[in-house]
Amino acid sequence: MAQQKATNIVWHEGNVTRQERQELLGQKGATLWMTGLSASGKSTIAVALEQVLLQQGRTAYRLDGDNIRHGLNKNLGFSAEDRAENIRRIGEVAKLFSDACVLTITSFISPYIKDRDLVRKLHEEAGLPFIEVYIKCPIDVAEQRDPKGLYKKARAGQLKGFTGIDDPYEEPTRAELVIDTSTTSVEEAVQRILDDLRERGLIDE
Amino acid sequence: MAQQKATNIVWHEGNVTRQERQELLGQKGATLWMTGLSASGKSTIAVALEQVLLQQGRTAYRLDGDNIRHGLNKNLGFSAEDRAENIRRIGEVAKLFSDACVLTITSFISPYIKDRDLVRKLHEEAGLPFIEVYIKCPIDVAEQRDPKGLYKKARAGQLKGFTGIDDPYEEPTRAELVIDTSTTSVEEAVQRILDDLRERGLIDE
Repeated sequence: MAQQKATNIVWHEGNVTRQERQELLGQKGATLWMTGLSASGKSTIAVALEQVLLQQGRTAYRLDGDNIRHGLNKNLGFSAEDRAENIRRIGEVAKLFSDACVLTITSFISPYIKDRDLVRKLHEEAGLPFIEVYIKCPIDVAEQRDPKGLYKKARAGQLKGFTGIDDPYEEPTRAELVIDTSTTSVEEAVQRILDDLRERGLIDE
Repeated sequence: MAQQKATNIVWHEGNVTRQERQELLGQKGATLWMTGLSASGKSTIAVALEQVLLQQGRTAYRLDGDNIRHGLNKNLGFSAEDRAENIRRIGEVAKLFSDACVLTITSFISPYIKDRDLVRKLHEEAGLPFIEVYIKCPIDVAEQRDPKGLYKKARAGQLKGFTGIDDPYEEPTRAELVIDTSTTSVEEAVQRILDDLRERGLIDE
């Protein structure tokens, strides 16, 4: 049983500052926001990047449809309003993870410039790095890959509002990184992102 | 400029498993859910606990009104429905942080058993530790402290639906830890939580 007794707990009033946190953890946080068409390769690159960062002993975490759509955002549908709220909430959560000094990787189509720019602004206002990574892929290449058969369904009219078919994908105009997956391997993509993080002083070595 | 070239990136298909993540980071995640009256001492203990965990080199993060109310939950008000959604979202975010192997400390009054039990269930379903910490404090003691003058305002009828005055606080019936702050110092409270985490195998040493 725990007993109440004198302790060696030392703490100061007030919150831990960001600099203290970075020094104590030996790590800086950032949000890597992957955007691109369905089947562009976002998730594959995000999964590989997360693994490599973890192998290097860095705290990294990936937000994607699997852990967001059935959890935090399960009460959102696909109306224009709900789509915007979907991205806003993901942006706010990514901001919290970055604030916690986690290298945060998001993987969502996030087709609208307005929504992505809102998330960028949230990070800028909080003084947290936001790196928009455009996972570029010609739509005919994405449509040929079509691992889940979604393009086929969209072409057949069974899916409405599908990005690239009957809903627009607004290409980033100021992405920090552009990776064309029709000419870049997953390994090369991960290496480019690591190089970029290093150049920004967000990871060492 | 980054160049595309052969790399040493090694990764496997599929997501990083929880066990891999724990081993790579040398840390397990958990949610420490502090609940209690306004001015019970939740936030003071949460702030101190976060600091001590960070000093030990553990990744810890605190979710509280400051980083949630003006961010993720800024579109929620104080209706019964919005209060429940407030706690649900915080619970979902805590679950994500725990899944990322972060020791996650939440600090919200969270007065209703139903809402807290929902969050407990979310964690149980995800196989993540949920530790309800009841920060107990007699209401007359909390009311005497009243650092923000909120009880005074509530008594004067200037704040409606204030927990403990004209809205109920439902005491936890199965909290993993109960800490009475009218008889326990902040240092002792933090020590008790650390002892508990150790006994559960969530931290070592």
